[in-house]
Amino acid sequence: MKVRRSERLIDMTHYLLEHPHELISLTFFAKRYESAKSSISEDLAIVKRTFKERGTGILETLPGAAGGVLFIPVINKEEAKKYIDSLAERLSEQDRLLPGGYVYLSDLLGEPQLLRQVGRIIASKYVDKKIDAVMTVATKGVPIAQAVSYYLNAPFVIVRRDSKITEGSTVSVNYVSGSSERIEKMELSKRSLKRGSRVLVVDDFMKGGGTINGMQSLIHEFEAELVGVTVFAEANFKGKRIVTDYDSLLYVEDVNTQTKTISVVPGTYFNEE
Amino acid sequence: MKVRRSERLIDMTHYLLEHPHELISLTFFAKRYESAKSSISEDLAIVKRTFKERGTGILETLPGAAGGVLFIPVINKEEAKKYIDSLAERLSEQDRLLPGGYVYLSDLLGEPQLLRQVGRIIASKYVDKKIDAVMTVATKGVPIAQAVSYYLNAPFVIVRRDSKITEGSTVSVNYVSGSSERIEKMELSKRSLKRGSRVLVVDDFMKGGGTINGMQSLIHEFEAELVGVTVFAEANFKGKRIVTDYDSLLYVEDVNTQTKTISVVPGTYFNEE
Repeated sequence: MKVRRSERLIDMTHYLLEHPHELISLTFFAKRYESAKSSISEDLAIVKRTFKERGTGILETLPGAAGGVLFIPVINKEEAKKYIDSLAERLSEQDRLLPGGYVYLSDLLGEPQLLRQVGRIIASKYVDKKIDAVMTVATKGVPIAQAVSYYLNAPFVIVRRDSKITEGSTVSVNYVSGSSERIEKMELSKRSLKRGSRVLVVDDFMKGGGTINGMQSLIHEFEAELVGVTVFAEANFKGKRIVTDYDSLLYVEDVNTQTKTISVVPGTYFNEE
Repeated sequence: MKVRRSERLIDMTHYLLEHPHELISLTFFAKRYESAKSSISEDLAIVKRTFKERGTGILETLPGAAGGVLFIPVINKEEAKKYIDSLAERLSEQDRLLPGGYVYLSDLLGEPQLLRQVGRIIASKYVDKKIDAVMTVATKGVPIAQAVSYYLNAPFVIVRRDSKITEGSTVSVNYVSGSSERIEKMELSKRSLKRGSRVLVVDDFMKGGGTINGMQSLIHEFEAELVGVTVFAEANFKGKRIVTDYDSLLYVEDVNTQTKTISVVPGTYFNEE
């Protein structure tokens, strides 16, 4: 039975949102809705316009026999800025201050709506970078990696500081922890990253950048390629940072354990544009 | 400017999908699209029917002044069954066999499309259970917890085996590892779970059930309530299991390190219906 336009639009929207960065042929939709390709084309034009107007993302149309449509989730700058501002405010909450000047983030990194937005914001920066894998380090980086992975439709891999038998053979590197200057070790399952992969590194928090630097070494060991680094929040680090080429959504400018205040502002994410 | 029906349907679908288990008033949509409530009602009826027909989920309509609509993502049994069958096949792949009879899962637990489906399948079981939090243990349980959390629109909390200064004060419990009978320790940040919370526990793999049992103790310490346990895969465990009330999507029936074969079948998820 032929499906009506209104129903096609609803189901098509659902399908596209769940399959970002995936080329979908007109034939696929034509069969799914038992409708003519010309009708599907018209539907897609409406979806495209609406996605654009509402800031949902870009619907790219690729012509020809091997063509189809490709949904690319992006967030517009104003919406991203507004969201980051609201996050800066939440991070500045007094009771987030932990001994040693650390900031408590675990509750935020467990909120599905926050992760969706953060994933969308980070992914937006790499839509045309052909990312093959998102890399992070266990444990708190994982939610960020997964959130980004959903929008880029690329798998994520988890680097670990501890050995686990369930990982099989691993490749390990030593790295210098930027903040404490200790030598540490991290490893990644050998089969989790293909040679030549284009890798995006994400993490929850960066101080000296040692962990990020360790991941860079690992990427090198796997003969893969580092495409970019984005962290959720970076601290105001007094020493010399090992990593210089990165983006942060938030910048923890100052932490005062005496007055118990945290000052957080938007990070470098918006700088270069 | 008034928004046309076709555009309303597209954007409404997007909005509902990103806000599961959240009551949205008709007024909200009426304002968003500068349209009459009667038109919005008609739109929602179309969305409701389409979601039902396509197995996307249930759109519940709550009448009255405090009413609105609530999108509840569910998956129908046949689709879930088919997906689990395909997963069983992938888990049976010979090269997943690790020394000690473990099964390599890390690649699967990093695939966004797989996680979406697994999240939807697990969440479907708890749609009417008023889950306040999804709990898991670091590291490999995290992707499952996040995936479920997206569909239930409830935060997830991560129990850790190692202390971290970035967690603030924690509550810890000792537990007996079911498979090795060693005494181990796990802990959860004190502020991450409210008293009385209704908790769903998820994990990637269960052998003896010691880890799950540890999480049960933690939930007890927090004066919260355990509502259910679902694991991605369970092993055929020869000893006596500590945990008996749980569901699994997959059951690793047999692992033969000599013939290098893994036999995986659907788990208990489909049993009780």
